[in-house]
Amino acid sequence: MTKKIAILGAGLSSTSLINYLLERAVIYDWQIVLGDYNLALAQQKINGHAKGKAIQFDVKNQAQVDSVVSENDLIVSMLPAMFHYQIAASCVKFAKSMLTASYVSPEIKALEDQAKSAGIGIFMELGVDPGIDHMSAMRIIDRLHAEGSEITAFYSSTGGLIAPAYDNNPWNYKFTWNPRNVVLAGQGPSKYIENGLYKYIPYHRLFKNTMQTSIDGVGEFEIYPNRDSLKYRQTYKLDTIPTLLRGTLRRVGFAKAWDVFVQLGATDDTYIMENSSEMTNRQFINTFLPYSKDQSVESKLQALLPNIIDETVMEKLTWLDLFAETPITIEKASPAQILQSILERKWQLDEGDKDMIAMQHRFDFTDANHQMKQITSSLVVFGESKETTAMAITVGIPLAIATKMVALEQLVLTGIQVPVTKEIYEPILDELKEFGIEFNEKEITI
Amino acid sequence: MTKKIAILGAGLSSTSLINYLLERAVIYDWQIVLGDYNLALAQQKINGHAKGKAIQFDVKNQAQVDSVVSENDLIVSMLPAMFHYQIAASCVKFAKSMLTASYVSPEIKALEDQAKSAGIGIFMELGVDPGIDHMSAMRIIDRLHAEGSEITAFYSSTGGLIAPAYDNNPWNYKFTWNPRNVVLAGQGPSKYIENGLYKYIPYHRLFKNTMQTSIDGVGEFEIYPNRDSLKYRQTYKLDTIPTLLRGTLRRVGFAKAWDVFVQLGATDDTYIMENSSEMTNRQFINTFLPYSKDQSVESKLQALLPNIIDETVMEKLTWLDLFAETPITIEKASPAQILQSILERKWQLDEGDKDMIAMQHRFDFTDANHQMKQITSSLVVFGESKETTAMAITVGIPLAIATKMVALEQLVLTGIQVPVTKEIYEPILDELKEFGIEFNEKEITI
Repeated sequence: MTKKIAILGAGLSSTSLINYLLERAVIYDWQIVLGDYNLALAQQKINGHAKGKAIQFDVKNQAQVDSVVSENDLIVSMLPAMFHYQIAASCVKFAKSMLTASYVSPEIKALEDQAKSAGIGIFMELGVDPGIDHMSAMRIIDRLHAEGSEITAFYSSTGGLIAPAYDNNPWNYKFTWNPRNVVLAGQGPSKYIENGLYKYIPYHRLFKNTMQTSIDGVGEFEIYPNRDSLKYRQTYKLDTIPTLLRGTLRRVGFAKAWDVFVQLGATDDTYIMENSSEMTNRQFINTFLPYSKDQSVESKLQALLPNIIDETVMEKLTWLDLFAETPITIEKASPAQILQSILERKWQLDEGDKDMIAMQHRFDFTDANHQMKQITSSLVVFGESKETTAMAITVGIPLAIATKMVALEQLVLTGIQVPVTKEIYEPILDELKEFGIEFNEKEITI
Repeated sequence: MTKKIAILGAGLSSTSLINYLLERAVIYDWQIVLGDYNLALAQQKINGHAKGKAIQFDVKNQAQVDSVVSENDLIVSMLPAMFHYQIAASCVKFAKSMLTASYVSPEIKALEDQAKSAGIGIFMELGVDPGIDHMSAMRIIDRLHAEGSEITAFYSSTGGLIAPAYDNNPWNYKFTWNPRNVVLAGQGPSKYIENGLYKYIPYHRLFKNTMQTSIDGVGEFEIYPNRDSLKYRQTYKLDTIPTLLRGTLRRVGFAKAWDVFVQLGATDDTYIMENSSEMTNRQFINTFLPYSKDQSVESKLQALLPNIIDETVMEKLTWLDLFAETPITIEKASPAQILQSILERKWQLDEGDKDMIAMQHRFDFTDANHQMKQITSSLVVFGESKETTAMAITVGIPLAIATKMVALEQLVLTGIQVPVTKEIYEPILDELKEFGIEFNEKEITI
């Protein structure tokens, strides 16, 4: 019987997923429906494919959500995360399995029993982070546990960055995905465990609290902790591990310069600034600095943050036109919105630019012979173009493979599922190699 | 006709208010109903007074709220601020005027038209801060404006502190009111205007950003900014003033030591710590410090905050038993809750201790003859006992006087009212003098 697969959302990160499924639709006799609020965009992505159909789809129209879910066999949601509960609830109602790349929210978690009763799987966290990070970590964790090793430390970090060949600004950074998420990253305390001791780092100290690492072929990186590493002890079956830290990868020197914005309060998204549309970049920075009759903005910044401001940080700030009288034209904006607008002018991808996804796991462990060892497992994926980015590939392909597995009934789990079990991660990781998505693993004795 | 006045809430800060109204009930033939969830407490405060009656009152019982409001002529609410909307809505329904010492919330502000239609006044912000601060500031502002002066700067600060004679710890501070509010004070950015420039100070820089002042007879203080000074430009009819800052008064050196908690993240109330009931004070501090195999908590703190930690700060921290292995016994607690419990053991009022309210306004202005001048207006009130605190007196007496004025129909305004108009503040400030609540005003040429 022809399987009908609905993909909701035709945005940038859906391209690789759509192409993968359209190609296999011919082989497996699937019908692909691609829904987007922007019908033209969906039509462009289907590009006249015989097995594809574009429709105008409005997630705010509950009747349409229910009709699309009920008319298809399988629902893949690439919509913004906030809409997933609504889709999931409809999937439960019509007993249709669903797949997404987003985090399991507490609301969706609460659908566990209903999903099981309906006999459907809600497969989530199937992108890159979360997604490939879970799969690749669990493959090593399960192997080490099977070999009788005891894991004493696990560090896992991912970064969406500009590929080295196109890295041509002093920040070694460009926006390769949602700028707003980059500006707000890390807000709230970061929680991890180190040598058996819980550690809580407030946001205003986060970017001072970095580690360094290197990845073969692409060089040096720094890592700052993500918000909550503690909950991954359960996810990864590492409940008693003494050290676990998940982090974000940036090029060396990024954190120190970004810390200027954190220290100033320029990433705050909780209030609207007065007269934002009448300010310039320089005046924006000055609102966070003490009043002075005769000191320049630069001198006041230096005096306020003597341990941060140095020549390389000033070079980065100046390159952003932060001290220029460039008008900010956004009305009723928060500091974070204004900062984002300043960054977007400078951190945009240029024509021909390609992005990069870098991921690295490090495991310290004692093997069955009481030998202390360390495994480093690294992944680097480059984008193919401004459209087929590394982000779109690494988010879309694992999700697409999982969709194929569910469509072909190779994956028949029910309830809320994340890819931490062998039956999900093994076939996906194996097939990812065909797309050049493969980890480079090194083991040393320590 | 006998006026019936209901007072809701018989807690610590109600004592002065209750006594004032009971005394005048004899003269003016009022009937006072005092409602509290704790009937025994209400009975104790009424103390058999012929004009008083104690009742058990449960604000969560809407039927009882409606019956108390409908059976009385005037409602004075000393309940926690979160209940005021509910009381106000009932007052609108039964067309009874209401008085409180709390801030006007947006929800209550929205009752403006209904209160006017019902012909009732909802009189708020009638305590000390907000309350006496508004009244005393507006008296000077109205006078200066009437004299043709132009106000160029207004600084206004208040502090609830321990009276100098009982000030015997290195922090020069004890809890004289709600400890939770003290621990959470200042969270979120502080907003003010200085020489025509907007200034936004993030919480993590707030306690580094102090001014100093002195008050005759009680010595030196430091001021840190309150959260939102900008909105007072409208309240005080100072829409175009170049400099306006409202702040909190503490003894000199408090802010620097308190900043240790802010920098550590120990005042965070947004998450629950793991195993809080199994920690000691020392371990609590260590959770915010980097891991080290061989450094002490004290050395790590010094290394983390080199510009804050000095001998006097360490003396303050050590005096709090912060480095001691004192067990923290609270389960599932946030950092702020744990910190509060540590502070409550040390900052409690001893038997016989008396508190102090200090308030100071400073106005810089150019008079009608183009002469630049400065007025400093200061208030100091000492508590009479652990029960009749300066806080209870300064919150209760102005509210009680306003209640008398409404009961005697000397104050017949309708809608939501705060004491920024002459007809409210003049008689209250005049009568406050009889209670020793009087500002000391000094004017100098600058």
